[in-house]
Amino acid sequence: MPVMTLPTPKDVHATRADGDLETLQKQTNWTDVQKLALSARILASEGHFGGLAGQLTARIAQDRFLTLALGTTFDEARPSDFIVVDDDLNVIDGKGIPNPATRFHLWIYKQKPTVRSIVHTHPPATSALSMIGQPLIVAHMDMCMFQDQCAYLPDWPGLPIGDEEGIIISEALGGKKTILLANHGLIAAGETIEEAAYLAFFFERAAALQLAASAAGTIHPVDPGKAREARDFLLKPTIVEMTFEYLARKALRGSDVQGLIGN
Amino acid sequence: MPVMTLPTPKDVHATRADGDLETLQKQTNWTDVQKLALSARILASEGHFGGLAGQLTARIAQDRFLTLALGTTFDEARPSDFIVVDDDLNVIDGKGIPNPATRFHLWIYKQKPTVRSIVHTHPPATSALSMIGQPLIVAHMDMCMFQDQCAYLPDWPGLPIGDEEGIIISEALGGKKTILLANHGLIAAGETIEEAAYLAFFFERAAALQLAASAAGTIHPVDPGKAREARDFLLKPTIVEMTFEYLARKALRGSDVQGLIGN
Amino acid sequence: MPVMTLPTPKDVHATRADGDLETLQKQTNWTDVQKLALSARILASEGHFGGLAGQLTARIAQDRFLTLALGTTFDEARPSDFIVVDDDLNVIDGKGIPNPATRFHLWIYKQKPTVRSIVHTHPPATSALSMIGQPLIVAHMDMCMFQDQCAYLPDWPGLPIGDEEGIIISEALGGKKTILLANHGLIAAGETIEEAAYLAFFFERAAALQLAASAAGTIHPVDPGKAREARDFLLKPTIVEMTFEYLARKALRGSDVQGLIGN
Amino acid sequence: MPVMTLPTPKDVHATRADGDLETLQKQTNWTDVQKLALSARILASEGHFGGLAGQLTARIAQDRFLTLALGTTFDEARPSDFIVVDDDLNVIDGKGIPNPATRFHLWIYKQKPTVRSIVHTHPPATSALSMIGQPLIVAHMDMCMFQDQCAYLPDWPGLPIGDEEGIIISEALGGKKTILLANHGLIAAGETIEEAAYLAFFFERAAALQLAASAAGTIHPVDPGKAREARDFLLKPTIVEMTFEYLARKALRGSDVQGLIGN
Repeated sequence: MPVMTLPTPKDVHATRADGDLETLQKQTNWTDVQKLALSARILASEGHFGGLAGQLTARIAQDRFLTLALGTTFDEARPSDFIVVDDDLNVIDGKGIPNPATRFHLWIYKQKPTVRSIVHTHPPATSALSMIGQPLIVAHMDMCMFQDQCAYLPDWPGLPIGDEEGIIISEALGGKKTILLANHGLIAAGETIEEAAYLAFFFERAAALQLAASAAGTIHPVDPGKAREARDFLLKPTIVEMTFEYLARKALRGSDVQGLIGN
Repeated sequence: MPVMTLPTPKDVHATRADGDLETLQKQTNWTDVQKLALSARILASEGHFGGLAGQLTARIAQDRFLTLALGTTFDEARPSDFIVVDDDLNVIDGKGIPNPATRFHLWIYKQKPTVRSIVHTHPPATSALSMIGQPLIVAHMDMCMFQDQCAYLPDWPGLPIGDEEGIIISEALGGKKTILLANHGLIAAGETIEEAAYLAFFFERAAALQLAASAAGTIHPVDPGKAREARDFLLKPTIVEMTFEYLARKALRGSDVQGLIGN
Repeated sequence: MPVMTLPTPKDVHATRADGDLETLQKQTNWTDVQKLALSARILASEGHFGGLAGQLTARIAQDRFLTLALGTTFDEARPSDFIVVDDDLNVIDGKGIPNPATRFHLWIYKQKPTVRSIVHTHPPATSALSMIGQPLIVAHMDMCMFQDQCAYLPDWPGLPIGDEEGIIISEALGGKKTILLANHGLIAAGETIEEAAYLAFFFERAAALQLAASAAGTIHPVDPGKAREARDFLLKPTIVEMTFEYLARKALRGSDVQGLIGN
Repeated sequence: MPVMTLPTPKDVHATRADGDLETLQKQTNWTDVQKLALSARILASEGHFGGLAGQLTARIAQDRFLTLALGTTFDEARPSDFIVVDDDLNVIDGKGIPNPATRFHLWIYKQKPTVRSIVHTHPPATSALSMIGQPLIVAHMDMCMFQDQCAYLPDWPGLPIGDEEGIIISEALGGKKTILLANHGLIAAGETIEEAAYLAFFFERAAALQLAASAAGTIHPVDPGKAREARDFLLKPTIVEMTFEYLARKALRGSDVQGLIGN
């Protein structure tokens, strides 16, 4: 074995990595509705159903929100399928109606001024995990973005079409970016459209890991301190955007690109 | 945190949502055989095998039923593959023979005059769930259509080609819309072709959630009262039709549309 | 509820079903190598890997056998990729060499004169099941072809390239059609190429059901008497051929039909 | 039952098999970057994510390494996406930057002069297995390449961008070809690019078997002596190359062949 040189301190490498990451150029310049349509397609390919069971929204002004018209699902969403609603779900622009369950998004937007976009879905692994009374456990490096950032609502308040559910859900979410809703699904509230999609994407993957690991043995969580360090790295805007761009390229391959981005 | 306005009562929001849903226009005008062919393709893409292990029927008169000719499976079904049989499975119109196991459908149609269409399949998750002596547990919002609507037959009566099995199965189903058959599969009896397909589709998804959740932990059912409220919403004809249309659009994408819908 | 007519005895319905099945015409007239190539593609799409981990053979004379040349896998097999070997694996016709692990097939052919074709594979569910010291449990209608027809070899004899493994495996198989090999995989020995493929196909599906059910609860086997009745139905040549034809049509859709069947 | 001839000793058959294998001709003559791009595509189709969560490197000189530019993921990798870095990750040739977590590869290359290529990924089954404090268990013939060749690092040292993690990981790997990293993923260090890809490919499959088997029952390992014999066979360069060629052909089918191989 060759002689090993003494290590450079990790923070030197970390600073260099940060600098390198900053040199990466954003490859794309999508509009909000393009980003939302791409988010829908990205999530659809991971089993997020959409339709009645899920909504995707973005705040474009204090009281104006983009959302997918009811009846269109994530796997077929196009930019022209998004409508603009106000803070009581009245349609301001576009054709169709919002999903009435979008109401609780309004409560989250009210409570969290920095939230720009919300994804709510019931994908399979998250749904199964939501049935056994367990919060998300951060036990893998790729789950670390959820360290101290995933709340848990242990009781299902019923069909979330009223204000009551909006209050319950937004309070349970509190200062965190995501929440696991028992017997129901997930919410990811991002500071950008990209971040909301990124969090929802990795939430479902985290839930799938937790389910498979729980079925096979006893989960060993990661050290919270190291998880926080990894979380801060994984939530850097550069990382989030690079990942979103990759996922979007994947969604666009073999897809009806013209329809998805052309309008 | 901004001041929170007092909530509007939930029933006000529910009434408004109902009204909004009524404004949605049905997008399609398919014939019965087109709907059946679409149902077959929708279910095939979720692992419902068809062929020997499953049948799909619709009542078109007191003693006349559409069914897929034996040897054609769900994933290749076209409108022209459906034949008309009478209430003893004699072929009245079309080429081929019915699956002899379709006999128990006749018993259900006799007992339940409002049933218009029946799906019987053995998809993977339902099949696995049927092997462990457990009824379906409503533990997720997306399973709520099964609250008080899923019966359980705890013993397998053998190959269901006789009248005995028809009597046993139709009695076990009773007043419910669906049933889990131990060591066998599922039955969904709908008031429309769309409803039967919708119930069968979500039944398999519910079974998959129950299996995954059971493997990972202990299932917490939802509150039955809230589940009933959600069930009544999820079984609204508007919701069922909108979902069927979405699933049909998905089945048609990338499929041999001409053959599937052109007859 | 309408008055229920008294049931016709089940054997009357069974006889009628048998008669009806006999009226079904075979749709195809494939050669042996075409059937083998189709079997390979059918099994590949269910996760049977082939290559080193699996072989597919057919007896075409007392001491002549068709087998896939080593290096070609199930998902790319074409009729021209099959070679003829003798009862010591010497190549008699065709280009390439046999998988050396095909030797144990020879021992089964010697012991079982009615066996015409053998599939040996390590698909995922069968492989996982083979790791936990459990034989196959017949607990679903669609597994009933394995009632009293699935042996179990509880110890792995090592890489099966010698005569010793041939003796051990063929003796463990005994008078049955299939065997689960611990820490290894499955063997299906059929009286036709279609039957061998059919058995291997449903073996892996049965293993998947057993795994999923075992992870979620305790398996309840079916009544052995009823399982035998269903087995006899499921092993009827008409049923086997009809199912093989369906699976072959599925394999051919979207595939390179010309290459697969043209030679 | 016909009289059984006495068996030829297994080593005679083994020697013959070895000789036969030597007659197989390599079908292809890919460059290093083509092999790396093919490895990336092969692994992507098995759920190895790449991107931030995974790297693929090859040593082309004492202190020169090929690696995929950060931001390009395994499922879209082309030969032209690989860059050359030195032993401090400075870019020597090509456009872009390396993944900063590639640093620990350098430590492995330093410690193991015969290692030519390293794959590090977090595919789903390996990730789930890495969460429950269990090393890989060799309990199936197709896992035997890992007998005495899979180390285990029981604690996650945090984001692996520093030299510390490089030292910890390379020491834990020791003289073995692969390692399971708790709460993280896998490393496969091969003497060729093909071997690294082959090991990573079967590692994830082994992890999937172990997870499924653990969820369903108690795993019975194979006899270590027989496993070593099988390992030596499964690690023969001829076997590794033949398998890589097959996996590469599969990756190329239906893919953008021109872009992938044409450079």
